[in-house]
Amino acid sequence: MKKMEGLIAAPFAPMQADGKLNIDKIPAYFQFLQKNGITGAFINGSTGEGVSLSHDEKVKITAAWTAQNKDKALKVINLVGGTSYEESIASAVSSAELGVDAISILAPYYFKPASGKQLAEFCAKIAEAVPQLPVYFYHIPVLTGCNVSMYEFLQAADSMIPNLAGIKYTHEDFMDFLSCMSYREGKYDMLWGRDENLLPALVLGARGGVGSTFNYAAPLYHQLIKAYDKGNFAEARQLQQQSIDMIRLLGKYGGIATGKAYMRYVGMECGEFRSPVQNMTKEAYKAFEADVRALNMEALFSKI
Amino acid sequence: MKKMEGLIAAPFAPMQADGKLNIDKIPAYFQFLQKNGITGAFINGSTGEGVSLSHDEKVKITAAWTAQNKDKALKVINLVGGTSYEESIASAVSSAELGVDAISILAPYYFKPASGKQLAEFCAKIAEAVPQLPVYFYHIPVLTGCNVSMYEFLQAADSMIPNLAGIKYTHEDFMDFLSCMSYREGKYDMLWGRDENLLPALVLGARGGVGSTFNYAAPLYHQLIKAYDKGNFAEARQLQQQSIDMIRLLGKYGGIATGKAYMRYVGMECGEFRSPVQNMTKEAYKAFEADVRALNMEALFSKI
Amino acid sequence: MKKMEGLIAAPFAPMQADGKLNIDKIPAYFQFLQKNGITGAFINGSTGEGVSLSHDEKVKITAAWTAQNKDKALKVINLVGGTSYEESIASAVSSAELGVDAISILAPYYFKPASGKQLAEFCAKIAEAVPQLPVYFYHIPVLTGCNVSMYEFLQAADSMIPNLAGIKYTHEDFMDFLSCMSYREGKYDMLWGRDENLLPALVLGARGGVGSTFNYAAPLYHQLIKAYDKGNFAEARQLQQQSIDMIRLLGKYGGIATGKAYMRYVGMECGEFRSPVQNMTKEAYKAFEADVRALNMEALFSKI
Amino acid sequence: MKKMEGLIAAPFAPMQADGKLNIDKIPAYFQFLQKNGITGAFINGSTGEGVSLSHDEKVKITAAWTAQNKDKALKVINLVGGTSYEESIASAVSSAELGVDAISILAPYYFKPASGKQLAEFCAKIAEAVPQLPVYFYHIPVLTGCNVSMYEFLQAADSMIPNLAGIKYTHEDFMDFLSCMSYREGKYDMLWGRDENLLPALVLGARGGVGSTFNYAAPLYHQLIKAYDKGNFAEARQLQQQSIDMIRLLGKYGGIATGKAYMRYVGMECGEFRSPVQNMTKEAYKAFEADVRALNMEALFSKI
Repeated sequence: MKKMEGLIAAPFAPMQADGKLNIDKIPAYFQFLQKNGITGAFINGSTGEGVSLSHDEKVKITAAWTAQNKDKALKVINLVGGTSYEESIASAVSSAELGVDAISILAPYYFKPASGKQLAEFCAKIAEAVPQLPVYFYHIPVLTGCNVSMYEFLQAADSMIPNLAGIKYTHEDFMDFLSCMSYREGKYDMLWGRDENLLPALVLGARGGVGSTFNYAAPLYHQLIKAYDKGNFAEARQLQQQSIDMIRLLGKYGGIATGKAYMRYVGMECGEFRSPVQNMTKEAYKAFEADVRALNMEALFSKI
Repeated sequence: MKKMEGLIAAPFAPMQADGKLNIDKIPAYFQFLQKNGITGAFINGSTGEGVSLSHDEKVKITAAWTAQNKDKALKVINLVGGTSYEESIASAVSSAELGVDAISILAPYYFKPASGKQLAEFCAKIAEAVPQLPVYFYHIPVLTGCNVSMYEFLQAADSMIPNLAGIKYTHEDFMDFLSCMSYREGKYDMLWGRDENLLPALVLGARGGVGSTFNYAAPLYHQLIKAYDKGNFAEARQLQQQSIDMIRLLGKYGGIATGKAYMRYVGMECGEFRSPVQNMTKEAYKAFEADVRALNMEALFSKI
Repeated sequence: MKKMEGLIAAPFAPMQADGKLNIDKIPAYFQFLQKNGITGAFINGSTGEGVSLSHDEKVKITAAWTAQNKDKALKVINLVGGTSYEESIASAVSSAELGVDAISILAPYYFKPASGKQLAEFCAKIAEAVPQLPVYFYHIPVLTGCNVSMYEFLQAADSMIPNLAGIKYTHEDFMDFLSCMSYREGKYDMLWGRDENLLPALVLGARGGVGSTFNYAAPLYHQLIKAYDKGNFAEARQLQQQSIDMIRLLGKYGGIATGKAYMRYVGMECGEFRSPVQNMTKEAYKAFEADVRALNMEALFSKI
Repeated sequence: MKKMEGLIAAPFAPMQADGKLNIDKIPAYFQFLQKNGITGAFINGSTGEGVSLSHDEKVKITAAWTAQNKDKALKVINLVGGTSYEESIASAVSSAELGVDAISILAPYYFKPASGKQLAEFCAKIAEAVPQLPVYFYHIPVLTGCNVSMYEFLQAADSMIPNLAGIKYTHEDFMDFLSCMSYREGKYDMLWGRDENLLPALVLGARGGVGSTFNYAAPLYHQLIKAYDKGNFAEARQLQQQSIDMIRLLGKYGGIATGKAYMRYVGMECGEFRSPVQNMTKEAYKAFEADVRALNMEALFSKI
């Protein structure tokens, strides 16, 4: 597979008011992403609450996204990783049958691998079940607690996992990230996963990113990339700062669930996060809405 | 349910040489625990590799243990916790059908609850699906990354989870532990989960413990409890020190997989741990065996 | 030196309202401790704000305590540790001249030793400057960030530091603590440093403790030890729980500075902590005072 | 003061073979930095072992550097921070008398400030003692353990510390860094302190950096900055990767002491680090030397 470029969104799992999946929302969601210039959908990940869903629910979500994607308008990447390789293999095989473009594997997050080799061995068991599919490792140590460096992982995985395509890198270790970019003359597709630092990743050579805020603020990042490509760094910095101001509200309003509040704000209602993630109260949403308006960045949000 | 007393073992998941479950081993394992004076089996937990097994595998293990336990010789507690309450509910319901004596719930370990209330809400969803069963919360922050104190959890859960029976407390915070012991005049059954500190837990009033080393060194802990009960503290300390010397080899030989090496040593072969847990090489096992012999504590190991 | 027994207080540094040292308070403080059955004073430690004082200020405090102690009513232990062994040596030599009974050394807390050997080498440089004085290592990783286990430290230090007398152990790792108690047949004097866990330490054989809450709640701990020695464990647990309830207010009101609020409460005004430690506002003090009264444990506080 | 630009080195403290200061080395060191295009010297910092030296030793070092700097060829910044503001004030006043161009203050690293306000209050006490001098806060949470964000610090410090000039930012939080760059239209001088990430900092607008590897590899970073300024990003990345390869040897050979091994390698012998920092054995140095040669980057090292 060619390296991915541009903005790959990590879609939210659409929920009904009663907490059940709202699969019917996915066609509209697909159109929404396309309309906003998104090039891929990384489903069932952190933003997509994969860990909070049952296997059957994840299959339904996957089927709904691939059903929309007959024309391959987007790259659909499905996160199949978990703590049991048996379950991940089942999920990988089902993903292949449903026609995803790639799968992604997470470091197991209960028993944590302590070396690149241990981590690569775990991933290899899953990857070899779907040799026809590109595999992206999903590096997000803040959630998995697996702190193996990706440079060490690549050194072990390179000979073990023939279908390893690259890494979704959601961590702020640019020394490690650049080392992975440089590894074997840039063999691996390194997808940047921290939206608040896209500009530093671009100067290190990143061409694609996977992000949750791309769901609702795609124009901001399109402009940022454009400014960077033109060498307008002052403008690029200002846009990155606007992205940061937007992201800072996630911290203020309690974390990841704020993403679904932003989706409501831009008109693509996705319901709430499932427990244990904490959702905003109605009062908090009002304060949040006021804070978003005060950012004064309407033109940078995605359009329905 | 009355409070549990004595040594509750956390059984290993018996595996074949090819990494598949060895369910047929469970009857012998059950006899082995009984013979060594064990009062309960906490299955599919950390020692039991619950997170590394598929749902179907866990059902098979549960069925095998409850099939042995028709006479209620042991208390069988099944860990049903995970990151998806939907999957945990399914597991809890199946546990009830299979006749377990209690279930246990873990803090979700990807998205981590940040307050007692958030944690209690997650657990309540699972507990209310099996109102007839006692529920034990399993506190093991070193693996889950959820650092909510149990005193805070109990304050929130007390009114939310009527069938909450107690806590398996696998953490070294005796201030929190004693506060839970004291809570509402000792309403909750507090099971101590750190074998290397059983003596300090006893003086705080603990009467039961759940441990992995109880699988292979039950006589040591029986003697320790007896010495404590008689007020022979010097002897109790010496036995606790021997437990520590034994446990220190887990650190030396790479962690949790060393437990299965101890099982091999005492003659109850359980195979290896699944990836991502690292197992000992054959050479390491030889060195381990020599180190165990040098402990000079044969009389304190469990007997086949 | 014989092993220390009983309650060793870690005195606060008395300050005037303007933040200058209030050396004149020390004679009364000395009497206060004696009257309450305290057996030692661990000065210039964490509670004593040693790190926030200048070298000259620490000398003045040391001189004031040893001047009171001509009859050797207490053991006076002076913390001389820091990040520069040159400065620590100067402080150790001055301590010896001033007539302290022992010195104590902290792990350097900027560059952190990564092994027992590295830590022992640092301490040896200071200890060998005062060969006539017993030396206590002060283990408080939550503040120093040095996580070397004390069992590993003793193994390295035993042959390197002839005047090593023991360890003030302010950490909750009872496996490590018992291993140190057992080391070389109990050669080292292990002083327990977490007041909220004194009872578990007693059952492991501890006979002395160094604590900040001993400053203002000595009767509570005297009773606790007495109850333990008589085998009245239910009573001992209840007293430990009262100690915990008292200590929980430290967390509620912002940490270490709450200790000086307790001193004000019992009538031994010591002023405030220096920056960067945060002190209570007057309003917070009122709420604190009400919370303390609600503990209903007047009889357990120290008496003027 | 104008904002600083270019490479500011953090000089090592030159030591004799017996561990005493080698002050006589400083004139040659000064020439060496000048010859290699260094624009400033940040003395008595982490690289300079300030925390391991006595007050008198730091005064001698400061005097030696300012004596060389009569023509103001370099900016000399002296780290005066510690855990006692009394000692830091004394050090700041002496720095001013000795003619430094600026002072720097560290977060106190024993009792850690928990908010921007607490941190700013501590710094203000020191800064107001030398109102004539620019003050740089030195942010290095990996060593101080103070995790207050600099954006929060600036919001508190802006009105409290009139002579606050900027921040030496030795941490990898680019969201926080850019927020500080943007704060009050770029009022503050933000000096980047992680050499392995200089390129990402440049694209965010950094124009100056303080680094330990600038001591021995100045040409590498001069070329990197030049390549960046010309828009030759591929070249800049390659140079950053070479910097990373060089820095990775610090990890391999035990950390900060490896810096003095690099100094030996380039011909500017500075002796060893003081305890508790661990130095290389002679054998390790040989292996290190071979590894450095294999980097094949002689042209990028500083020249005597």
